[in-house]
Amino acid sequence: MPGTIHDLDTPVPLVDVDRMHANLRRAVEYCRAHGLAWRPHAKTHKSPALGAEQVRAGAVGLTVATPREAEVMARTVDDLLLAYPPVGAAKLQRLMALPERVRLTVGLDSAEALRGLARAARQAGRRVGVLVEVDAGMGRVGVQSAADAVALARAAADEAGVEYRGVMFYPGHVRDAVERQDEAIRALSDRIGGVLEALHGAGVAPEVVSGGSTPTFWRSHQVAGLTEVRPGTSIFNDRTTAEIGACGWDENAYSVLATVVSVAVPGQAVVDAGSKALSKEEIRADTAGYGALLDRPEIVVKFVSEEHGLLDLSRTGWRPRIGERVRIVPNHVCVSVNLHERLYGVRGDDVVEVWDVEARGR
Amino acid sequence: MPGTIHDLDTPVPLVDVDRMHANLRRAVEYCRAHGLAWRPHAKTHKSPALGAEQVRAGAVGLTVATPREAEVMARTVDDLLLAYPPVGAAKLQRLMALPERVRLTVGLDSAEALRGLARAARQAGRRVGVLVEVDAGMGRVGVQSAADAVALARAAADEAGVEYRGVMFYPGHVRDAVERQDEAIRALSDRIGGVLEALHGAGVAPEVVSGGSTPTFWRSHQVAGLTEVRPGTSIFNDRTTAEIGACGWDENAYSVLATVVSVAVPGQAVVDAGSKALSKEEIRADTAGYGALLDRPEIVVKFVSEEHGLLDLSRTGWRPRIGERVRIVPNHVCVSVNLHERLYGVRGDDVVEVWDVEARGR
Repeated sequence: MPGTIHDLDTPVPLVDVDRMHANLRRAVEYCRAHGLAWRPHAKTHKSPALGAEQVRAGAVGLTVATPREAEVMARTVDDLLLAYPPVGAAKLQRLMALPERVRLTVGLDSAEALRGLARAARQAGRRVGVLVEVDAGMGRVGVQSAADAVALARAAADEAGVEYRGVMFYPGHVRDAVERQDEAIRALSDRIGGVLEALHGAGVAPEVVSGGSTPTFWRSHQVAGLTEVRPGTSIFNDRTTAEIGACGWDENAYSVLATVVSVAVPGQAVVDAGSKALSKEEIRADTAGYGALLDRPEIVVKFVSEEHGLLDLSRTGWRPRIGERVRIVPNHVCVSVNLHERLYGVRGDDVVEVWDVEARGR
Repeated sequence: MPGTIHDLDTPVPLVDVDRMHANLRRAVEYCRAHGLAWRPHAKTHKSPALGAEQVRAGAVGLTVATPREAEVMARTVDDLLLAYPPVGAAKLQRLMALPERVRLTVGLDSAEALRGLARAARQAGRRVGVLVEVDAGMGRVGVQSAADAVALARAAADEAGVEYRGVMFYPGHVRDAVERQDEAIRALSDRIGGVLEALHGAGVAPEVVSGGSTPTFWRSHQVAGLTEVRPGTSIFNDRTTAEIGACGWDENAYSVLATVVSVAVPGQAVVDAGSKALSKEEIRADTAGYGALLDRPEIVVKFVSEEHGLLDLSRTGWRPRIGERVRIVPNHVCVSVNLHERLYGVRGDDVVEVWDVEARGR
């Protein structure tokens, strides 16, 4: 293991271990205070060691999105929610091949996905939990009405091989600044409340009501009936999370260490972290750039190409020299992590841990 | 090797080998017709087998952006241009450790990068070529004036360990539709012409004048003095390249095979290829979405999250069922390839080749 970050070649992702542990503690404390089960999404770190760390910190299990994430996390964790319908023989086979000790639950929104899962479970002699995915207003996936939720819950309850466990939703449309979320959270709570009422009335009351995203995480207690939350980003946070006020800037545990390689064009400095290290995801219409410096958040990465990031020096007197290094907080941490093979845990400049991003493949 | 694409799990990148070979032939023929050396950029495919294929087809060598790309391509190719300043000891050491047989040239825009490279070359007992990078108007990297180009060319000519070979530029700012490029190409040619004149006058005439990007590729003969072009994307093409008219839609050789996993929300279908398979790069302000179906280009991926792609069905009567598969052409092929471990070469539905994306790491 390298001794310090000065021994690492750039671009390279760093994790401030003390900030990460503080982020985990805050999540656990919030969930305990409100009686919520904490099932963090492993897509953010894709590392089985960090998944195990989350369970040690108090998670009831992990959320995953792909069979690969399930396989990798199953090495260290016994309770997994695949929050994604496994469609097709290959994915179903891989899920059924997970170790017996893994308590598996799957979220889905169609009779087709349910039947495929149930058939695979029966053939494998497994019992797999099912959560009915409800569209909470994002318009991405999820059944569209309380009646559809009841119908799919009944089908799950009736189908051999699977066990109906409840409902899940993802409020990905609520990404306003937290102080402007009141109305959106009320609408969300009303919508979910209507579904829960219908399920209770139909005799398919959910044992699990799983929701939560990082932007709405700290508002989870305002959603009536919620039993479980699945924030991913909150282990590390990122520029978007800070921008909407769901974390402080100094709660950013993840950054990409980069080297200044060109200062030829006035008013900017070019670093060796571009879209293949940070990603090129827009933050939102009114916020420019693809990242900002951890120690100088007023300096934004105004443009990225694959291996170039352009630091905008128009709002600073700081003029870096070629060879100088900076730490960049990307807009969206999950897609940045996915571009790297390893995460380096640091305390100050010392490298104290190395985690393989093992679930990044397929 | 799997027999057909039906044996592959999704999302998975496919390369139509006949279209790819046709794309390579078109590039070679264009370059031959105009007396240009063809040095394609390996960042697009990151596969040493495909790099070797390009050289067999007529490339003089390859362009690379990172030490990792150089190391991997050096396995099969003897002539490499690193079109990126190697700053820092780690990168310089890796470059100097390339096999002796590799003729290495490096593009750079600063005296600092030049001195570091020359020192490393002397210590390694190597002779490394240098191209002075000139800003052709993109405002990313490159010396800003003819006088600065002359000064850096002279420094390169005088410095032991390196050999001054010429200039390079990247016209990444010329991304208009090809039919609107006339003025931009004239301005580019004038700007480069001024630099070349100054270099000739100062006794540091360039042997190599390396330029070209995929959007401007077919206009390269209109840039006075150009000797070499470095298109990356043109081996596969992508939605952006087709959108600006630099290729036809049926010259798209690359697509991501994806499975429909949800049709719960009316007017759309959700596939299992999101930003971690396609990337989430905007195409440009007036073109929506993150990809389009290869066989139904009117159907756009209107939104992506990490593992979800939302097909917009508003302009089609086609209604896919869950489990149906589609091929998606992403906005930017280079960043999509970089998200996958292997590319599958196909002829119709038959898988005929598998290439590892070996240079995707660091």
